[in-house]
Amino acid sequence: MMPNQSPSWLTPALQHWIESAQPHWQHYTEHAFVKGLQTGTLATEAYVHYLKQDYVFLHHFAKAWALLVVKLDTLENMKLAAATVDGLLNHEMALHESTCEAHGIDLATLQQTPESTANLTYTRYVLATGQAGDALDLLAALAPCVFGYGQIGLNLGQTRTSNNPYQPWIDTYHGEEYQQVCNQVGQLMDQLIAQQLGDHPTEHPRWSKLCQIFTQATALEVDFWQMGLTKT
Amino acid sequence: MMPNQSPSWLTPALQHWIESAQPHWQHYTEHAFVKGLQTGTLATEAYVHYLKQDYVFLHHFAKAWALLVVKLDTLENMKLAAATVDGLLNHEMALHESTCEAHGIDLATLQQTPESTANLTYTRYVLATGQAGDALDLLAALAPCVFGYGQIGLNLGQTRTSNNPYQPWIDTYHGEEYQQVCNQVGQLMDQLIAQQLGDHPTEHPRWSKLCQIFTQATALEVDFWQMGLTKT
Amino acid sequence: MMPNQSPSWLTPALQHWIESAQPHWQHYTEHAFVKGLQTGTLATEAYVHYLKQDYVFLHHFAKAWALLVVKLDTLENMKLAAATVDGLLNHEMALHESTCEAHGIDLATLQQTPESTANLTYTRYVLATGQAGDALDLLAALAPCVFGYGQIGLNLGQTRTSNNPYQPWIDTYHGEEYQQVCNQVGQLMDQLIAQQLGDHPTEHPRWSKLCQIFTQATALEVDFWQMGLTKT
Amino acid sequence: MMPNQSPSWLTPALQHWIESAQPHWQHYTEHAFVKGLQTGTLATEAYVHYLKQDYVFLHHFAKAWALLVVKLDTLENMKLAAATVDGLLNHEMALHESTCEAHGIDLATLQQTPESTANLTYTRYVLATGQAGDALDLLAALAPCVFGYGQIGLNLGQTRTSNNPYQPWIDTYHGEEYQQVCNQVGQLMDQLIAQQLGDHPTEHPRWSKLCQIFTQATALEVDFWQMGLTKT
Repeated sequence: MMPNQSPSWLTPALQHWIESAQPHWQHYTEHAFVKGLQTGTLATEAYVHYLKQDYVFLHHFAKAWALLVVKLDTLENMKLAAATVDGLLNHEMALHESTCEAHGIDLATLQQTPESTANLTYTRYVLATGQAGDALDLLAALAPCVFGYGQIGLNLGQTRTSNNPYQPWIDTYHGEEYQQVCNQVGQLMDQLIAQQLGDHPTEHPRWSKLCQIFTQATALEVDFWQMGLTKT
Repeated sequence: MMPNQSPSWLTPALQHWIESAQPHWQHYTEHAFVKGLQTGTLATEAYVHYLKQDYVFLHHFAKAWALLVVKLDTLENMKLAAATVDGLLNHEMALHESTCEAHGIDLATLQQTPESTANLTYTRYVLATGQAGDALDLLAALAPCVFGYGQIGLNLGQTRTSNNPYQPWIDTYHGEEYQQVCNQVGQLMDQLIAQQLGDHPTEHPRWSKLCQIFTQATALEVDFWQMGLTKT
Repeated sequence: MMPNQSPSWLTPALQHWIESAQPHWQHYTEHAFVKGLQTGTLATEAYVHYLKQDYVFLHHFAKAWALLVVKLDTLENMKLAAATVDGLLNHEMALHESTCEAHGIDLATLQQTPESTANLTYTRYVLATGQAGDALDLLAALAPCVFGYGQIGLNLGQTRTSNNPYQPWIDTYHGEEYQQVCNQVGQLMDQLIAQQLGDHPTEHPRWSKLCQIFTQATALEVDFWQMGLTKT
Repeated sequence: MMPNQSPSWLTPALQHWIESAQPHWQHYTEHAFVKGLQTGTLATEAYVHYLKQDYVFLHHFAKAWALLVVKLDTLENMKLAAATVDGLLNHEMALHESTCEAHGIDLATLQQTPESTANLTYTRYVLATGQAGDALDLLAALAPCVFGYGQIGLNLGQTRTSNNPYQPWIDTYHGEEYQQVCNQVGQLMDQLIAQQLGDHPTEHPRWSKLCQIFTQATALEVDFWQMGLTKT
């Protein structure tokens, strides 16, 4: 794999969280499922299974972002989180619905997808972390999904396999719109860190717990890809 | 006052809640503050005080709608609540900011408005009710604000005082867009009632508690107008 | 296995939930781990692994019972839930600590137990279910643990294997004190069902969702035993 | 008034919060209601009104301590919060019931006490603050009640008016048991501050917000005494 470009949203704090989450972060961003997307060799059944579970996932991920609105202090940050909730529910869901329909899964079937355990584990962990902690704890649990997909999008967008059926997926996360989401969430993260941890966040007593939350959520992303691959 | 027209969103269930909340509902929708808006005789200082407090209020009201997203089951309902959060934060706030600016209150001053006790009481009651109960309990606490403003808008829009400085306020809540919001929230309310209480909701053991929540929030709306009037 | 005696706490509602959770309920209450406890043939390593994970589990289970206090309406019910939280944290934890110490695991080691995924999945599911729903939703998620251990205690207490190292475990859950806990939680459950669902709970629109929560939590109990057996 | 003795639980952090909450803290701890308790001249009706509202208050205050259990990390701290919830619900409530009964208020009447607005404001503020923030935010909202009653107990216990009908109230909060509660909550507070803010808490960016929460809750304690006095 070529050296990855360094994303604009890769702040020092995020870089630190990612390092603390190794080797899970690498297992997540370079998972066999991801490589299958890159080369176009991923089995259609695995992709469709993933899409259906991701549809269920987005319901709970949107709830977690909504919980962040409840927990944020400033209007500016609340606006960003609210726009994310709205974007996930009122736009991203429709994309999944149309993609699934293109793969022969009608809306009724999609909506009756039984939630896999890996899926349930991940989203309930995020929601319960937000319930127990503050906005920053919750954001540490949300971050691996946001930035991991951003990283994977950048990695996979560097090369192009002809006739790759997964090119639209790659284009979505490589595209400017999604990368801009990463930038905004990165700014939110930096603001919350400054507000909750001060000028030397890595020396703050909360830092190790935040690293632990980020690591746990990263490990659950690995399980999510694996679930897609094994169709469990 | 002329007989009020019956709004399209006045479902039997809402009608029942409103009756159970009397005389608070009448005190709320026909408060001296409201009559001052109608006749244009409300003191500017009272209106500006109200606007500033309402700006603070909207932060917490948006959080309560975001909490509703966490608590709702179906995608359709989550979408509606998410759009409401987004509308409140990313649109309605800007309206308040520009209206306040037109009254000589710059954004920095507006953002430093000290929260009045009547304001704090109301919003924290709604949030804590949502935390303790389910989506329907929370909606019962949100409903007096939504439908009360809808009713006031309809009432005040029936007549027109020339050169009323508060005509834009009246037009907002009398307008089709806001009345459509009431329709959508009314449908959400009917769905939740059917889902949580079944076919005979008024005979359901939860009904009296829901009436009590709606009544309490209505009484806190009365206090909110009063706070505007007394500038406390 | 002998026919099981019908426990005093097996109310019609619970009976209905259990039936709806089959075959998971049977897999849970008759799991190979449970049979190993009964015959005394369970590997010590598996038991110790289970004890350590159960210690972590109890932290989150106590949080879920504490969340129930936030969500309950009547003082009588709040008292019961509060006594449960206190009992779990200020008594049951000490039992685990002394049992673990008897198996050579000191407190510091016990407290650093890394949480298994099966453990995390189960407890965060319960907590997030409570966060999204009301007291009854939360109790449906708590019930499989409470009553399942009660059922297993009754089943295993019917016979006695000589020199069974797990006899104290069996005695705990077969004992009058734990069975009394089941009775109290059964009464709480019946009260909440009457309050939230009325006289014909199984015909109530919420019933299927409550069955689904109970079933999901039961399935996660199966995974918990399995985790003990495979020491994952 | 004599110079007050400095309580053992008056840590530097708490001292700082108290100073930031002036003059509200003085209005709270030296309120006319408190002076009426000290001199025995408080009208019985005011005391009884207060007792009844305090009974309602304790329901929600116990919920807030239960929410703290959900939000705490260490077993030691969870144990303390759980014991507090249990003590409030399973012991303190009974004291209120017997005191009220001695004043001619039977249990049924006590349990139907309509919640005053000052009461509702205070408890819902605490609960919503806990919901939005972390354990330390919640504790900052709980602290004025805990330590204010401790301070008032110490102040009033220094002198003794003969035949003071409120001597038992004074003895409760002046007594070793309640002062020990203050010590324990003070230790919990110091631990959370160290954990969440580090070694120089007053320089931490969160400090001013914590002072603001403590101040708001202190101001709501003033309103609570006032509500007792005016029987509103």
